[in-house]
Order: sequence, then C-alpha cells, then structure tokens
Amino acid sequence: MTRKVYLEDIPLDEAWRRFSDALKAIGRWQPIEGEDVPVARALGRITARPIWAQVSSPAYHASAMDGYAVRAEETITANDTQPLQLELGSQAQYVDTGDPLPGWADAVIMIEQVQPSGTTHIEIRAPIAPWTAVRPLGEDMVATELVLPANHILRPVDLGALAGSGHALVNVRRKPRVAVIPTGTELITVEQAAQTGVKSGDIIEYNSIVLAAEVEHWGGVATRYPIVIDNFEAIKAAVAEAAARHDLILINAGSSAGSEDFTARVVQELGTLLVHGIAVRPGHPVILGMIEAAVSDQQSTISDQQSAISSRQSATPIVGVPGYPVSAALTGEIFVEPLLARWLGLPGHQKPTLRGHITRKLLSPLGEDEWVRVTTGKVGERIVAAPLSRGAGVITSLVRADGIVRIPRFSEGVATGAEVTIELYTDPAEIDRTIMHIGSHDLTLDLLAQHLAEMSSDSPTPDRSLQRRFVSAHAGSLGGLIALRRGEAHLAGSHLLDPESGEYNFSYIKQYLPDVPVVVVTLLRREQGLIVAKGNPQNIASLKDLARPEVRFVNRQRGAGTRVLLDYRLKELGIAAESVHGYRREEYTHLAVAAAVQSGVADCGLGVRAAARALDLDFVSVEWERYDLVIPRQFYESELLQPLLALIRGESFRKVVGELEGYDASGMGEVVRELGRLAA
Amino acid sequence: MTRKVYLEDIPLDEAWRRFSDALKAIGRWQPIEGEDVPVARALGRITARPIWAQVSSPAYHASAMDGYAVRAEETITANDTQPLQLELGSQAQYVDTGDPLPGWADAVIMIEQVQPSGTTHIEIRAPIAPWTAVRPLGEDMVATELVLPANHILRPVDLGALAGSGHALVNVRRKPRVAVIPTGTELITVEQAAQTGVKSGDIIEYNSIVLAAEVEHWGGVATRYPIVIDNFEAIKAAVAEAAARHDLILINAGSSAGSEDFTARVVQELGTLLVHGIAVRPGHPVILGMIEAAVSDQQSTISDQQSAISSRQSATPIVGVPGYPVSAALTGEIFVEPLLARWLGLPGHQKPTLRGHITRKLLSPLGEDEWVRVTTGKVGERIVAAPLSRGAGVITSLVRADGIVRIPRFSEGVATGAEVTIELYTDPAEIDRTIMHIGSHDLTLDLLAQHLAEMSSDSPTPDRSLQRRFVSAHAGSLGGLIALRRGEAHLAGSHLLDPESGEYNFSYIKQYLPDVPVVVVTLLRREQGLIVAKGNPQNIASLKDLARPEVRFVNRQRGAGTRVLLDYRLKELGIAAESVHGYRREEYTHLAVAAAVQSGVADCGLGVRAAARALDLDFVSVEWERYDLVIPRQFYESELLQPLLALIRGESFRKVVGELEGYDASGMGEVVRELGRLAA
Repeated sequence: MTRKVYLEDIPLDEAWRRFSDALKAIGRWQPIEGEDVPVARALGRITARPIWAQVSSPAYHASAMDGYAVRAEETITANDTQPLQLELGSQAQYVDTGDPLPGWADAVIMIEQVQPSGTTHIEIRAPIAPWTAVRPLGEDMVATELVLPANHILRPVDLGALAGSGHALVNVRRKPRVAVIPTGTELITVEQAAQTGVKSGDIIEYNSIVLAAEVEHWGGVATRYPIVIDNFEAIKAAVAEAAARHDLILINAGSSAGSEDFTARVVQELGTLLVHGIAVRPGHPVILGMIEAAVSDQQSTISDQQSAISSRQSATPIVGVPGYPVSAALTGEIFVEPLLARWLGLPGHQKPTLRGHITRKLLSPLGEDEWVRVTTGKVGERIVAAPLSRGAGVITSLVRADGIVRIPRFSEGVATGAEVTIELYTDPAEIDRTIMHIGSHDLTLDLLAQHLAEMSSDSPTPDRSLQRRFVSAHAGSLGGLIALRRGEAHLAGSHLLDPESGEYNFSYIKQYLPDVPVVVVTLLRREQGLIVAKGNPQNIASLKDLARPEVRFVNRQRGAGTRVLLDYRLKELGIAAESVHGYRREEYTHLAVAAAVQSGVADCGLGVRAAARALDLDFVSVEWERYDLVIPRQFYESELLQPLLALIRGESFRKVVGELEGYDASGMGEVVRELGRLAA
Repeated sequence: MTRKVYLEDIPLDEAWRRFSDALKAIGRWQPIEGEDVPVARALGRITARPIWAQVSSPAYHASAMDGYAVRAEETITANDTQPLQLELGSQAQYVDTGDPLPGWADAVIMIEQVQPSGTTHIEIRAPIAPWTAVRPLGEDMVATELVLPANHILRPVDLGALAGSGHALVNVRRKPRVAVIPTGTELITVEQAAQTGVKSGDIIEYNSIVLAAEVEHWGGVATRYPIVIDNFEAIKAAVAEAAARHDLILINAGSSAGSEDFTARVVQELGTLLVHGIAVRPGHPVILGMIEAAVSDQQSTISDQQSAISSRQSATPIVGVPGYPVSAALTGEIFVEPLLARWLGLPGHQKPTLRGHITRKLLSPLGEDEWVRVTTGKVGERIVAAPLSRGAGVITSLVRADGIVRIPRFSEGVATGAEVTIELYTDPAEIDRTIMHIGSHDLTLDLLAQHLAEMSSDSPTPDRSLQRRFVSAHAGSLGGLIALRRGEAHLAGSHLLDPESGEYNFSYIKQYLPDVPVVVVTLLRREQGLIVAKGNPQNIASLKDLARPEVRFVNRQRGAGTRVLLDYRLKELGIAAESVHGYRREEYTHLAVAAAVQSGVADCGLGVRAAARALDLDFVSVEWERYDLVIPRQFYESELLQPLLALIRGESFRKVVGELEGYDASGMGEVVRELGRLAA
C-alpha cells in the first residue's frame, strides 16, 4: 500500500529547455501558419505576414468638401471689390465631399464661399491656393505601402485600414487548437452539482473550464473533453484521439505519482515523457511530453499508410496539469500562455510590475520557485502586498489576487516588510483607487465593497472618479490595529471590548497606536451569540454551557474581537479556557465557525447572527457589540476615503444594513472618538 | 445650388447632457438587464449581480494528500525509538487526495511517512497535529459567502470559482445590440473592391467594419446592415427596422448638412433630434437623437396593438456618425464606448496617460475640442509626442497613433515643445522600447521595423527583451537633424549632399548639431532618378528635361535630401527653379511622388527606384547616393539601440535589402564618421 515517490524536481528553466528542444525537433517552436479570414471578422486576430496596400486611398484626387472644383490659377484675381465669375462646366464643377475632381481641376472652393450667378456661372470673392480642400490620391495610403506589420493584433481601426487599402481578406495566424481532458473518477460536472447537489467525496470539475477559458483568452481554441474516469486504457484512448486533431493537449490531474495517477505512463506509452515534476509551488507535479502520431495498423490501405507516414513526422505536445485548481491555473500561465504566444507570433505576456512591501513573513521551501498570491494597495506612499491563502486548492486566492510575488529557488522566504516585486494581474490604476482594510471580519464588508464599486458621479459621461475598490484582509481586530501601525492598511474594523472600562476599542488603540492620530467611526452594532446546529440539539442556552464536557466548541483565532469577548465573559463566569472542549480549534471568520458547526465538527461557536442565518443554523444571542472603523487621520482626510465616508453617512447603505437581522445601523458613520497625537 | 448650413456647435458636455437626459427619460441610463449563461461560456462577460456561493468548497473535510486518516490525539506518543501501531479501519484509513475524511478522523499522515505493519496495521514514527493535511470544509468558499461582486468582468479563474461554488449558470449583462447602418450611393463593399477594383468616384465602405468591431470590442454585439443608398425613404425604412430590434443605432454618414445628408431629417421624422453638430474635431457633424417605437397601423389585430403599445413605451437612441473614417472611429470612442460601458455596468474606459512634449506647433480652431493623433517615444529622459496627419480621412493616423492629445476649446493651439497630456492607445511598456526615427524617408525603414519587431532572444521562454518598436516620422533629412537637436528622436536617416565637398551629411551635421556628439552609420546606398509614367511617354532622359515647358514635375518638400540633390544638380545644369513646371508642388515621401506621377498630375518626380517599381512606373536613373543613420552617441551606446545596430550589422537584413532593385547594402552598418564634442 506504500509506494516509492518518483516525482522529479526539475528547475523551471531546464523543464522549458527540454520542452522547447523537443518542439524544435518537430518544427513546432515557431509561429503557426496563417489562414485567410474576412476583414470584418478579424478583430483580435494576429497578422501572419506584413500587409501592403492593394489600392491607394483615396484612389483619386477627391474633394474634401461640398463645393466647386476649379483651377486655382484662374482664381488669383478674385477679391471683395472685384468678384470673379467662373463658368459652370468649363471653369467650375459642383462636387460633393468624396467626389473625384475633374481632370482639369486642382482645388475646391467650399460651397459657403460661393454665390450663384444666374444658372451658368458662380461668383467668388477670394482666390484659392492650389490643392485647397482636396484629398490627393494616396493621402492616406499609397498602393504597395506597408499598412500593417506581421504579428500585429488587429484593432478596429486596423480593420478599416485593411479594407480601405483593398483587402477583403487578411492572413492571420490560425488559432492553435488545444484539447483539455479532465480525468478523475471522483469528478462531477457543475451541471450535475447544480441539479443533484454535492455528495461527500464528489468534486466539482472546473479545471477544464478554467484551462479552456485561459486558452481562449490567450488566442487559442479549446476542445473540452468529457470527464474520463481513472482508467489507464480510457485515458490513453482519449489522449491518442486528441493528439490527432490538436496542436496541444492539456490533461488535467493524474499527473502526480499516486496509484491512480496514469498520465505519466500514458505519455510514456504513446510518446516521450520529457519532464515529470517541476520545482515550482504550487504546481509541482507537472508533466511535459510529446505524443507521437499513431502508427498505421496492418490492415490499412496504401493511402492510410501514406497519411500515417506524413502524420508520423509530427507529434503533439502534451502538458500534464496538476489537479489542484491554483496549480492548474498557474500551470496554464507558466507553460500554456508562452507556448500559445510563440505560436501566435506574439511576445509572451509580461505582467506590469510594482515594488511593494510584504505584510507577513513568508517561509518558502528551498529548492522550489514559489508563486504567492497577494492583494495590493497603496497606503500613503507605501505599496503593500498582503499574502493570500497559499493553499493550492483555494481558487479564491487567485480570484482575489492583485498579483503574484515569486519567491525564487534557493530563497528560504521573505521577512515581514521586505521589498518584493509584484507581478500584477490588476491594472495599476486600480491599485491607486484601492482602499485596503485589514482587521475584523464582518459580513457587511462585502456589501460595503459592492456599494463602493457601484458609486459613480452623476456626470453624463461615465467616470470612475468616485469608484473605489475595497480590499479586505481578515486578521482580527488586533491584527488590524497592528497593520495600521505598520502602515499596511487605510482602516481597520475593530470590536475589541476593554474588560476594565466595558468600552470598545479606545484602550486598545491607545496601547497599539500611541503615535498615530486616528478617527474612530462607528460602522454598526451587531448581535454576537452562539451559533448552534439547527434545532439546537445540545440545548445550549448561554456561554455557561461551554463548560459542559460533551459540548464541542470552535473558537476564533487570537486577536479576534470575538475571542477577546469570549475570554472576557468566560473569566466573568469563572470558566477556565482549558475546560472548554475545542477551545484550541481556531477559525478565522464567522462563516468558517458556522461552517464548522454545520459540518458537525463542533456543536457551537461564538459569532454574529448573520453567519448563523447564512448557513441556516440556529443562534443563541449573547450580546450586542459595537463595530468601529479605526482610521488614521491622514487617510480619514484623504480623497481616497471620501466616497467611503459619504457612503456610510448616506441613507441607502444604512438602510440596507439596518434591514439585516442581527444588525443595528443607527449609529453608522458617527465619529465616536478622535485619538492620538495631533499631526504635525 | 447653394444652401444654408445649419450645423450646430454644441459643446461636448452639453451634447452628453441632452443625450443622457433623453436616455434617463426612457429608463435607459442604467445597466442593462442580466441573462443566464453557462459558466463555461461566460469568459469576458460581466456579472449582473453579486454571486454568492451555493455550496461550500470543499463541501466536506477533504484529505490534502494521499495517506492515512487518523485521530491526531492518538498519535502523540509516536517517535523514532517507539514507533506507534495504528489499526487499519478503526484507527487509520487510507485516503487519496481529495477524499473525504471519515467522521472520526481529524488529520492525515502522508503516505511517505507510514510503514505497513502486516496487513492489519500501519506504523508511524512521529506524532501529527490536528488538521494536518486536511482541507477543512469551506477552506476555499463557504456557502452563502460572496464569490464575485456585480459588474465584474469574468476571467478564467473566476469561472472556476463560480463552478466550484455550485453555479452551472451565471447571470451576466446581456450584450447591447447595436445596428450599424452604412449609407451612401458612392460606397462599394471591400469585396466588390477586391473583385473589380476601385473606379474613380468609388469609396470602399469600411466605417461599418470599424464601428462594428468597436462595438464588439466594447462588449456589444453589432448587426452590420447592407449599404443603403442616399434616399430618404430607404434610409428611413432601414432606421425604423433597426430601431425595433436594437438597443442603439449607428448610422454612418449623411450626418452633415449637405443636399444628400438625410440623417437629421430621418431622425426628426421618426423621433427626436437632440443634437446636430458638436464642437469637436474631427467629428463635428454628429447627430444624437431618439427613434420612437413604431405606432401600430390601422389594420393591426389586437395582439399587434398590444405589442405596439408596450414597445411604444420605449425608444431607441441613434447616433449619426460622420463619414470621414477618423471622425467615425473617434465618434465611437466618444459616444458609443461610454454608453456601452454604462449599459454593461462598467466604468468608462480611461486610457493611461503620459505627460510629453509636442514636437510641432499645432494651431487649433477656437471653439472646438480637437483630438490630435500622436506617436510617442522616450528620447533620453524626455517623452515626445509627434503629431500625425490631422486629416479626418487618414485612417492610418489612427492606426499609427500611440495616443491622443486633446486641445480643448478656448485654446488656440500648442507651441512647439509644450508639455501636453497624451491619452495612450499603446501600452506604456511599449513606449519604453520604442526607437523614434525622424528624418528622411526610405522604403526599407518599413522592413527594418518589421525585422526589429521580430527579433527575440533564443531563450526557451519567449521574452521581448530584444524586441523594439521602430516608429518613423518622415520630416526629410534636414528635419531629422533638427529633431535630433531638439531631443525628439533617437536617430535620423539622412542623405544630404554637400555641394562644396560632394560628401554626404557631415557638413550639415556640423552645422545643425555642433554640440551633439554623433556617430554616423551607413544604412545603404540607393539609386535616385526620375520616376516617369509607364513607357516614359514624355521621353524624359535626364534632369535636363525638367527645363522643357511641357514637362510637369512634382517636387519634394524643403529640407528633403532629394530636394537638396535636385537643387544642386539644377544649379550645375544652370536650370532655374522657376523654369521647372511644378517645382512648387511638394510631396513628403517617395511613394507620394510616384503616386502623383501615376495619377497623371505630374509627368515626373525625383525619387528612389524602389518607389517607381512599387507603383509599376518607369525610372530614369540619375545617380547613387549614400543614406546614413545619424545617431547621437548617447543613444548609440544605449541598450535601446543595440538590437538595431546588431540587425544592420548582421547578415540577414543586409541580404534582404541587397536583393531589392535600386539598393546597395554592402556598406550597411559601417561607422563612417564620429562627430561633435566628446561627451563629458
């Protein structure tokens, strides 16, 4: 039942070298061939060769105005006192904008400057210079001139220049065809999940959706195969079939070295296994290989043999993509994007970069390149990068990521505050309008983010001057204050009860932010209580029940306001932490606590009513608490935060929050205290 | 035959105010409704509402490794000297990655750390902490949690998060349907042009291609109508038909006030004309209006009447788009993009901006906002913006534009060297790798640009470190030297013959760049001569024939090396400039000279053989001349220019140029002189 693990640990550049050498050997390390498509359907396609004008534009000397074509030299004597008569037909001819000039004319007088003179003449009162109001032949493009270079992504105006220079068709790179094959007996489709729900052991297959969308996004065309079960022959058949009709195969999962991991053997049997295991994290169990074209069988006819011979000269590259969603998506970025770019004649995509400061110490395994997902904002003059979950299964870490910080091999990690390079997914302009919140978690923060994103000025032309991106990292109330001290956030949500005074937050702010002038603004009051299973089977009535040995509790992490509240009330009740079963099991959000109760791992946990309600659990009220936003004065007064302050002082958001069960929004937006030294 | 011009001059913000007020009145000044689409087909679509998780992910506590599920508390005593036996089934259960944990287990020991012990037990040598190698329920997403906000453009990883949280469908904004109606009796399709050529008076219709592509690019779906002739009833019928099935109508041309301009009347008859003429340039004759829904006719049945009543509550906005291609494309940017963005729930697109220095004085009409297209590069530390053609018919000015400089109303223009804001079309990263050439025009510069764009390192992972963008402005040889002096270009192509010495360039460089150390590198030698019509009907044999009164000449602009050459040789021959018929007609490029000859406007012009050949004209050789690249030393030594120097010193480009008729590439890349003061 045990087995040897034989994954390699090949450095990324060596893996690329092997892969590109194999592609060179079959002539596939170069741009793909072109195909002719109608210009009107070529938006976003890439020119496969330079395009030269077929015709000149304009193709003749054209009038640039509605008016009269004339010979300029015949107008020299015209002036206000001596108007000049020109005979229609021989000396002046009416032309609309775009009309060709008569062969004898070399200028156009605009109609507003002309008076009729009977039916046979016109009268002008000023001379005109040669070539006035004329678009000369070839003003825009001269036949044979370069219109567009090769390897150019076609934009709307490019299509105009192509058509205007006489091209009905344009030769663009064929879109690389990529097969995406999901494998795994435990997989169900999202359609099945939506219809029948997710049973224990079911995994919703969505890597093929992500990989196919990546392929599309990068200019390829993807074929998503149906899910193949974990069976060597079935996988082999799917790969062989895909190889015949695609430029690249992505086979998802089964790329590791477990008993059900067949990909490496399939690649070996159908072709060449180049790499099995790359020193990157997440994404270690990557396979790179080449599938040879099928050899014709004995019964084939001569023509079959010929086609087999011609196809045998080629092979199809295959990437075995790891199963964890983050690994799968990053494998796409690392291997598929550069390969598609090369085939399409484009430079590989280079993300814009920023230098910023990491907010949390990161230990990283020696010997592997690690890709850490971060959110990013600009706090004062400091760019900060807050690491997100490093779990390879946490796709939301990529969804929320503003960028990636690479920790190279031979580095053991990054110290708190160290400067790092952030490769951005997010437009740098978005970073500038990002409000960074670090602190306590509350479910209404999502609503706040949504409302902020939808704010806009009422000016007729839409603009984003009032829009803000609200990025929230859940570090608990105390974690938020510490982040403010370090200059990592613009504000911190906090609900820290001071046991001495019974007041919220002020004593903690004095202790943790003695030198930072801050404004404390109330966001809301909310109901804390014990989240219990539906029907409250353990009959939990108050915090006293946590002392019962059969009651399994789930706690919040240290520094969380809810944890402070619990510890304070337990002390009041004389219940020792050690006597609470599950006191050490920590979760980071209210919803995670509720999820633990829902799953049956715990009987109860302390959290807000909204979390119980969200997962349809029952709730035993304990008390109402105040949840404040702690805002350093420098940010409180900044332009960045004004839309947020306006929002929480307006009516609409207060109304939305006030209608949620377990929330009281009556104090929303009130300044409850200003603290700290006055700013210089 | 004359008529009153009644175009208005409405400021842009006032035009927008009228348009948005009318849209508000019919409830169309807000995001469009959503539609459900399968997640796998939702790439690039925009969420119409916030999306909350349907299921948790993982939906159960899942093993993160292949290994054995155990109770952590039972492993505490295990160590190297006292291995621990765990019974299979009751104390340890094999799980693959992703499998659910048995209800009693709370940790997974990875298989590599386990020894089998008979068939009934496993042996471990280290304790394990609770929740090791477990992905707890909801680690990624907890049911009811916010997955994505509204108004979010779906990226590949977002589709994964949607599917992973149980969504088979996602509600995204319906794509706005936009009708694009080209009108004009003089128009032919590009297919007709490609098949039968362009006759005098024909205009290839491509604005509808550009507008439809813009609509698609901005997230709408376009219907391109067939060309409608200039007939009031025909246009009215097309607009009425389009109004019934679209969210927006773009009708192209006929938006001015000429005798064949029917759009304003059609809009008035079918609805409301809001704006006719906006104070922008290019793009003045814009129409904004609303088409009312058709009223049901007398014979309609009751159900027809009902549908008419319901549709009568609505109206369809219409934009009359000016006919000049640049005006049309910019009208799309100014009116269509913001409207589509609003309907899609997106902020209007804001181009990244740069501050830069304008290279040429621009006079601009008071009272109009002017959009000037510019190319942009970074010359030393100075960002320069070189204006392109301001002709509204020159679509290539938009194709080549790196950005737009707006000259506001109430400004008369911009002085040379003034600092301006450039709204970029081009990625700012591209600007940094741009080589700016200003100077003499040669046809091989296009080839040079193409080769530079294709250069790349041989590293396996594609990169753009060697790629350069070569941007060339044609200002003549002397113009190039002056641009170098002003710090507006990295290099200047020059072929200025010094009458005194018979040498090229050196004396001019000494005169115009006395303080700039430069390196003069030969690009090529080329054959200059008289470009004449096919068959040389005027029997032109040499420059002496320019003195013949019946020979019509076309000249190059002052400062062009070819003009200097002409003046020098005419002086040698004793021919006065005034005696050359057409001496004052100036063109800016060799191809433009050839085009003038081809069109019959001139009988001959001085230019390179390649230009004659390109347009299939005849050529009377005059002499071979040297064409140098003049490069300030600071740029000669810069990293930016190294790929260019490598290219002209390598074999492949020399070979390509050497094979062109009229070119001698044998000296390509040779440093012929270093001049100027030594750099500090």
